[in-house]
Amino acid sequence: MNSHRYCVIMCGGVGSRFWPLSRTEMPKQFLDFFGTGRTLLQMTADRIRDVVPPERTVVVTNRQYASLVAEQLPELASENILCEPARRNTSPCICWAAHHIHAIDPEASIVTLPSDHLILREDEFREAIREGFEFVEEGDRLLTLGIVPTSPHTGYGYIQLGECAEESSDSKLFKVKSFTEKPDETMARIFLESGEFFWNSGMFLWKADSILKAFRKYAPETAALFDAGDTIYNTPEEISFIDNTFPCAPSISIDYAIMEKADNVFMKTVEFGWSDLGSWKALYDTSPRDTSGNVTRNSRLLTRNCSGSIFAVSGDKVVVASGLENFIVADNGNALLICPLDEEQRLRQMVNDVKSRFGEDFV
Amino acid sequence: MNSHRYCVIMCGGVGSRFWPLSRTEMPKQFLDFFGTGRTLLQMTADRIRDVVPPERTVVVTNRQYASLVAEQLPELASENILCEPARRNTSPCICWAAHHIHAIDPEASIVTLPSDHLILREDEFREAIREGFEFVEEGDRLLTLGIVPTSPHTGYGYIQLGECAEESSDSKLFKVKSFTEKPDETMARIFLESGEFFWNSGMFLWKADSILKAFRKYAPETAALFDAGDTIYNTPEEISFIDNTFPCAPSISIDYAIMEKADNVFMKTVEFGWSDLGSWKALYDTSPRDTSGNVTRNSRLLTRNCSGSIFAVSGDKVVVASGLENFIVADNGNALLICPLDEEQRLRQMVNDVKSRFGEDFV
Repeated sequence: MNSHRYCVIMCGGVGSRFWPLSRTEMPKQFLDFFGTGRTLLQMTADRIRDVVPPERTVVVTNRQYASLVAEQLPELASENILCEPARRNTSPCICWAAHHIHAIDPEASIVTLPSDHLILREDEFREAIREGFEFVEEGDRLLTLGIVPTSPHTGYGYIQLGECAEESSDSKLFKVKSFTEKPDETMARIFLESGEFFWNSGMFLWKADSILKAFRKYAPETAALFDAGDTIYNTPEEISFIDNTFPCAPSISIDYAIMEKADNVFMKTVEFGWSDLGSWKALYDTSPRDTSGNVTRNSRLLTRNCSGSIFAVSGDKVVVASGLENFIVADNGNALLICPLDEEQRLRQMVNDVKSRFGEDFV
Repeated sequence: MNSHRYCVIMCGGVGSRFWPLSRTEMPKQFLDFFGTGRTLLQMTADRIRDVVPPERTVVVTNRQYASLVAEQLPELASENILCEPARRNTSPCICWAAHHIHAIDPEASIVTLPSDHLILREDEFREAIREGFEFVEEGDRLLTLGIVPTSPHTGYGYIQLGECAEESSDSKLFKVKSFTEKPDETMARIFLESGEFFWNSGMFLWKADSILKAFRKYAPETAALFDAGDTIYNTPEEISFIDNTFPCAPSISIDYAIMEKADNVFMKTVEFGWSDLGSWKALYDTSPRDTSGNVTRNSRLLTRNCSGSIFAVSGDKVVVASGLENFIVADNGNALLICPLDEEQRLRQMVNDVKSRFGEDFV
C-alpha cells in the first residue's frame, strides 16, 4: 500500500430529501439505509479501507456531527476527524483537508469521497481509485470520476469528455470539455445518446500539492485564507485557526471554484453501480423489490393492493398498508410522511413547512 | 335523586376495529378518542353522573382492565369494579351485575350502558334515562332504547316497534314486535323508509328483580349458575364464587338470551345524537372535518391533495400526507395502518394476519 495515499471523506452534509428518515441531527450519511447494520458513512469507510487505511483517512464533518462520526468509525483517531465550524459547501472543506494532509505529508495524494453514496461493485471501485491515484501521482493533475450514465437522469450534473488523455495508457482517461448543470429531460436524453456525457460523481483525486496550487490560481480568496495558517496545520493551534478562518471562506462548490476553470482537469470514466442516493426514487431504484414491486427497508410489512411503493419505517414497527401505488411511506420518531413518489421534489418545501409550523424538533 | 337507581357500565369489550389505535391491552373504551382529555369510558361515566351517582355505579370489566378502570374512574370505589374472569358476552355480565346490585338493594332499578358509545346531546340522553327509570319502576318491564335511524346503516341491529305501550302516557314507548340482525343495504333502506325500525343501542333499563326473573324464565342455565350464589353477593366470598362460576356460563348476548324471547320487552325511541363508534367510518362521520373533508384526531398534520380521510396519529407526531383520498391513517406505538376507508371491513383479517405473522405484541 502506497503510504503517501490519503482519503478525505466529506461528511458535513445535511439534507431534507429523506425526511423524516434523515433529520437535521442525523443526516443521511449516518443512517443504516439498507438495514444491513452499516451506515452509508461506514460503508464508505469500509469500501476504501483496502486502498487507504484508517490512519490516513480523514473525515471532514460539521462540529455538530463529530461525536456521530467518532461513534460510527471507532477505528479513526480523533485527530482524523476535522470539524468544520460552519457550513461552506465543498470548496473550503477540500482546501482545509488538503492543507492538513500536506502538513503531515507534502508528497500526499488524496482521494476525496462523499460519505453518502452507494456503490454496488466495490472491487471495481477500488480498482478505479488505484488507477486514479497512479495517474495523479505522475503529474500535476486534477481527476474527477465520471459515471457512465444508465438513464437520462435529470438529477445529476454531467461532464462532457474531451480528447483521450495522452498522458496515460488508460483508455478510460479523458480531458474534460465541459461541466454542465442538471439538464431537463430532453437534454438529458441527448446527453445519454451522445455517449459524450458522464454523471458528475463528486469523487476526486489529486496530489495535495496540485489542488493547493489550483486553489491559488483559480480561487485566490479561499487560498489566501487557508494559506495564512501554513505553519499551524497538524499542530494544536489548527482548531482555533480554523474556527476563525473557516467561516470567512466563500461558500462554493469545488466544481464551481476549481474544476470548471482549471486546465489540468481530467475525467476517468467508471461503471461500478453508483447512485448518489439523492432521492427516495433513487433509493427505490437501487433497492431490491418484492413481487409487487414494493421496496421495504427493514419494516414488518403487510401489503394489499400496493405497488411501486417504498416503505421506510424505522424500528420494529408493523406496517399494514392497502391501496398505495407509487408512494413513499416513511416513519421515523416524531414524524410520518405519506407522499406519492413523483411528488418528492416538493419534499424540501414540505419539510420547511413542518419546521415553520411545528418547530425544529420535527426536522 | 332516587336512591334505588343504579347504573351498570359494561366495559369488558375488546375489538380490532380501531387497530392500531385500540389494542388488546387498551381497547377502544379506554382511549381519548376525540382528543378532549376524556376517554369513552370517562365520557360514559360523566354522562350518567347526574342521574346515578358514582357510589351506585358499577363497572363490569375483564380482570385484565381492572387497573385501567380504577385509574380512569378514581371516583369509583374498588368494590364497584366487578372483574370478569373470562369473556362471556353480555348475558352473564348483566346477570351477575343484577345479582350484585340486588344484594345491595332489593328494590334497585338499573340502567345498563355500553362504555364505548358516543352521545352528542347528553341532556336529552339523561332525560330519556330518567323517563325510562320511571317506566320500569312501575312494573315488571324490560326496556331497551331504540335509536331513531338517520341512515340505512348496515352495521346495526334493528328493533321493530309494535303497539304503543298502554302502560304509559309516554308517546315514545312501544311494545317490541321483533329484533333483527344487521340487514343488507336493500333491507336497511326498507327499514329506514318504513319508520317502524330503530337501531338497537344496547342500552337497557329494568328493575334488578325483573331482569333476574327474566333470566330464570328465558335463560335458566345462566340463572341457575348465578342463583347458586344467592347468599354471597356483596360479601367477601363473591370474588371466588364468580371466579368459579362465571367461566361456566354460556357465552351469549342479552339480546339472544332474553330480549328476543321475553314478552314484557318495551322500546323507548330516542334521538340524542348516538353512534356506537363501531368503525373508522363511524368515527369519520361523527367527527368535525377540515375544509378538505379530512378528520384529524389530535395530530400535527400537513396535507396536500388529501380528502375524505381520517388521520389518527397518537402523540405529538407530525404527519405530512399527500395524495390520499378516503384513507385511514392510524399510527400508534409499534404499528401503522394506511388503508382505504371502504376496506375497513377487512381490518379484522389484517389484524389477525399481523398477530399470526408478527406476534401478540403488535395487536
